[in-house]
Amino acid sequence: MKQMVHDAARRARSAATVLAQASRAEKDAALIAMAEALVAATEEILAANALDVAGAREEGTPENVVDRLSLDAGRVAAFADGVRQVAALPDPVGEVVRGSSLPNGLELRQIRVPMGVIGMIYEGRPNVTADAAAICLKAGSASLLRGSRNAARSNAAIVAVMRDALAATGLPADLIQAIAADDRSSATHLMQARGLVDLVIPRGGAGLIRAVVEESTVPVIETGTGNVHVYVDADADLEMALDIVVNSKTQRTSVCNAAESLLVHANIAEEFVPKIVAALHERDVLIHGDASFQAADPSIVPVTEEDDATEFLASEISARVVDSLDAAIDHIRCYSSGHTEAIVTRSLASAQRFTRGVDSAAVMVNASTRFTDGGEFGFGAEIGISTQKLHARGPMGLREMTTTTYLVTGDGQLR
Amino acid sequence: MKQMVHDAARRARSAATVLAQASRAEKDAALIAMAEALVAATEEILAANALDVAGAREEGTPENVVDRLSLDAGRVAAFADGVRQVAALPDPVGEVVRGSSLPNGLELRQIRVPMGVIGMIYEGRPNVTADAAAICLKAGSASLLRGSRNAARSNAAIVAVMRDALAATGLPADLIQAIAADDRSSATHLMQARGLVDLVIPRGGAGLIRAVVEESTVPVIETGTGNVHVYVDADADLEMALDIVVNSKTQRTSVCNAAESLLVHANIAEEFVPKIVAALHERDVLIHGDASFQAADPSIVPVTEEDDATEFLASEISARVVDSLDAAIDHIRCYSSGHTEAIVTRSLASAQRFTRGVDSAAVMVNASTRFTDGGEFGFGAEIGISTQKLHARGPMGLREMTTTTYLVTGDGQLR
Repeated sequence: MKQMVHDAARRARSAATVLAQASRAEKDAALIAMAEALVAATEEILAANALDVAGAREEGTPENVVDRLSLDAGRVAAFADGVRQVAALPDPVGEVVRGSSLPNGLELRQIRVPMGVIGMIYEGRPNVTADAAAICLKAGSASLLRGSRNAARSNAAIVAVMRDALAATGLPADLIQAIAADDRSSATHLMQARGLVDLVIPRGGAGLIRAVVEESTVPVIETGTGNVHVYVDADADLEMALDIVVNSKTQRTSVCNAAESLLVHANIAEEFVPKIVAALHERDVLIHGDASFQAADPSIVPVTEEDDATEFLASEISARVVDSLDAAIDHIRCYSSGHTEAIVTRSLASAQRFTRGVDSAAVMVNASTRFTDGGEFGFGAEIGISTQKLHARGPMGLREMTTTTYLVTGDGQLR
Repeated sequence: MKQMVHDAARRARSAATVLAQASRAEKDAALIAMAEALVAATEEILAANALDVAGAREEGTPENVVDRLSLDAGRVAAFADGVRQVAALPDPVGEVVRGSSLPNGLELRQIRVPMGVIGMIYEGRPNVTADAAAICLKAGSASLLRGSRNAARSNAAIVAVMRDALAATGLPADLIQAIAADDRSSATHLMQARGLVDLVIPRGGAGLIRAVVEESTVPVIETGTGNVHVYVDADADLEMALDIVVNSKTQRTSVCNAAESLLVHANIAEEFVPKIVAALHERDVLIHGDASFQAADPSIVPVTEEDDATEFLASEISARVVDSLDAAIDHIRCYSSGHTEAIVTRSLASAQRFTRGVDSAAVMVNASTRFTDGGEFGFGAEIGISTQKLHARGPMGLREMTTTTYLVTGDGQLR
């Protein structure tokens, strides 16, 4: 298995060297061909997917996991359209990040160049296969796609279609390769192929991400887990606060930018707590509340420290009243996973203190936490949301899939 | 030991929270006070250093290592001056990296914020202690400094002086802490203090760097190793090529941006090889050459594949004639450590093909490889040269010691 993964990585490196010389037009033509081929191959992809779905059901896979695994013609059309949208985005490769003329006449430019070979280790959804391959290709890199075992036939079908389209447009098919998911060791070999793979991105549950971080010797970008807070300040517009809490918690509960914890300033608790409890109960949200919340509705279950630390990814929220803005910041620094925090306030000073005090990838002032998203931020495509501080933090688009090099041009300068 | 390292990291985190709120003026005042205190404490620092040097000699440490360990009043003044220079640099924290107004009226800004807690694991030179502490402080982060055992007393003296100066200016002394180097495990605990330490930077030999990369669960930036190439193209100005090869190889041999390999295009080999052999021999450089080089001077030792892969860090160079620019690029992609490569050419097309074809942190066109340096690039301070692609590549200054956050300001936007 190690040999197989390393061979794939070597082929990917050599293909990436070809891609590094390709023009934007060549890359975009390949992406458009890939999108068209995916739509044209809908039937084959759905047939492969049907086998995966049947296999998953047979193994007693929970229905929500089966749902994420399941494709239909609309879902295929949607990810094909995503590939087409990547073609329309500007090419990040070649962008000049900074530059200057040095005192000795050297011209210094820092420019974006391809990363090389990017490994993706992910769970569930087959659409990630097409998304990730397209983003990596546009950013000038080869992708090694290691999805989950239960999606293996779907992923193989999608990869086969994209490889054929690549080859037909004259780029190496080995720019996109599926890594066998038969046993766990293929993921381990991928994340330890130091020197062959430049970057590994895990996408999935907390367990997967922790395993990759611990075992990988290839540099990793951690994605995803979001224990997201909304803090309603003493100076908040309470109507706006109601809307933002409800939207952040309930607009979609299974995503990393959904709110999981509510903190309310004591000065407004008497007025705000009963209102937000009613609004959340109306939407069937289970509240884990402190004494102030329980006073508003005795049916509220008591909040535990474990709840404070939990990313529910469900219609549940932990809720506390805090004595001050600083207490809110301290609570968030203690329990947050560093994804997104929001403050609702009319006070500029409170907004500034909050944004400087918390330490997360995104901070919202008077806006829903659901906006932490590459599409919403205008990046056009997103390969995940980084919750680490190195390299990329927050939604990652094409730029974050590149590295840079310094080009120094002279006419014989010596030291 | 684990407890001790983790306690230090916790104190550093809490100190970093205070520093994150400090103004540029407060940070600069602290840095200037540190620089003055280091000069004032020269005698104590030299006394501690004398004990380290005596201990190292007693253990039979090689004289070049003892030399790097040894301080005198001039060296103390030099690193104190370095700290003062860091104070004079612009503050990277708060810099707006990009920003836009989104269609829904949200204002999006990506701004630089402090990394938090940075661990340095390094060998030999005590000046790294002062340099690293100053750069981390200016970038808003606390530093945990784990130097080598043989420099422990020097490092402890330098750290004590800087901590006192910090405390006197009102910032927490725990922003700068030395980690005991009594046994190897303190380094291991530092690089596995995930959640407490945000970044670890190893500086030292290849063995140290490999160990950190393999054992660390905290994100790492690899620094340093440089198997640096100079390629002399068919279209080169041969006088310029002579100067650049000689300067790249001999101006200082023990540094990572010194040339280690020479590649010469076959078309000019007959004229150029005897000249460069003479010039290098005049400067006592040992040449490991292929048949063409041996033909120019039979005393030249035959080059092996191991030589091609070796960073000599000494007055030695491997040298080969190549048939084409592409052969040079292939050789470099195979053997380079991704630090710096240079081409000497008058051809714009060759320069473009070379810069796109190699995959290194810096590429020089008609300039000495010795220019890959934070000081030469105008960064004002350098904490090392990254040879990895993630986060920072090439010389790292203050900006590279920060991360970013997205600030999103709205007036009640919902999804």
